[in-house]
Amino acid sequence: MKRLYSVLVENRSGVLSKVSGLFSRRCFNIDSLAVGETDDPNVSCITIVSTGDERTLNQIEKQLNKKIDVIKIKTFSESESTSRELMLVKVKYTKSNRREIMEICELMEAKIVDKSKNHMTIQICDTPEQANLLLQMFSSIQVVVEVARTGTLALQKCSIE
Amino acid sequence: MKRLYSVLVENRSGVLSKVSGLFSRRCFNIDSLAVGETDDPNVSCITIVSTGDERTLNQIEKQLNKKIDVIKIKTFSESESTSRELMLVKVKYTKSNRREIMEICELMEAKIVDKSKNHMTIQICDTPEQANLLLQMFSSIQVVVEVARTGTLALQKCSIE
Repeated sequence: MKRLYSVLVENRSGVLSKVSGLFSRRCFNIDSLAVGETDDPNVSCITIVSTGDERTLNQIEKQLNKKIDVIKIKTFSESESTSRELMLVKVKYTKSNRREIMEICELMEAKIVDKSKNHMTIQICDTPEQANLLLQMFSSIQVVVEVARTGTLALQKCSIE
Repeated sequence: MKRLYSVLVENRSGVLSKVSGLFSRRCFNIDSLAVGETDDPNVSCITIVSTGDERTLNQIEKQLNKKIDVIKIKTFSESESTSRELMLVKVKYTKSNRREIMEICELMEAKIVDKSKNHMTIQICDTPEQANLLLQMFSSIQVVVEVARTGTLALQKCSIE
């Protein structure tokens, strides 16, 4: 099973290293990790997606809670959260496949954010599944040059609070 | 000065901890960090934004290159890259400020991705500056409940290659 951890931590040097070290030392699996600021400059938010059995996932929460720099942890299942990830894909294009690439972008609500004579950079901000689908579509026509993506970002669904 | 490092690493447990540990041990500053998959399941991409003088920034690249799990590093300045970050903001609303919130979303090209009777979750995927601006706008009308954001994601501009 999959679980999302939204971990508020002190915005101090070394905190990320401690948190990710906890996972690697104990062989907990990290599917994805995103770290960024919050509205408070002293606080960062680390969103971690992990897979494991119930016992392991509870263990992770317990261990995270023990860390001094951890202020607060929220955990939720995929269905309880609004999850999004950001992906940038650079593709190469020619006159003959340009139309097809643009159609894929339109269908997937992806945005062309940079272009040159032979390349485009495309941004998609959607669920991890939709981002994967876009990548598969581009891979199947062999245009992918480079990919960068963030980990999953998640907030608890509005209806739950 | 600010520099972006796009670091391709082996997708192995413990790599993130090693890379972030390098920064904290040597007191290198991390402004933001995003880690995610690439089109190759064996390879992850870590995007790090760091600030420092020329010497420090070069030192960081050198140290990263020494790490066994690091496959390839690209560095670029802000102006050489297409940078985007993803932010999710949960806001509370009432009948009286709903219109204003929706107007801000429209202006900033932000998308309402979840809602309940009193709350909305809003997604923006833009430059870090624009994401900050949206947050300031919401903060000034005191509606922010929760914020999660990824670090900056960047690809080299198409025109440079």
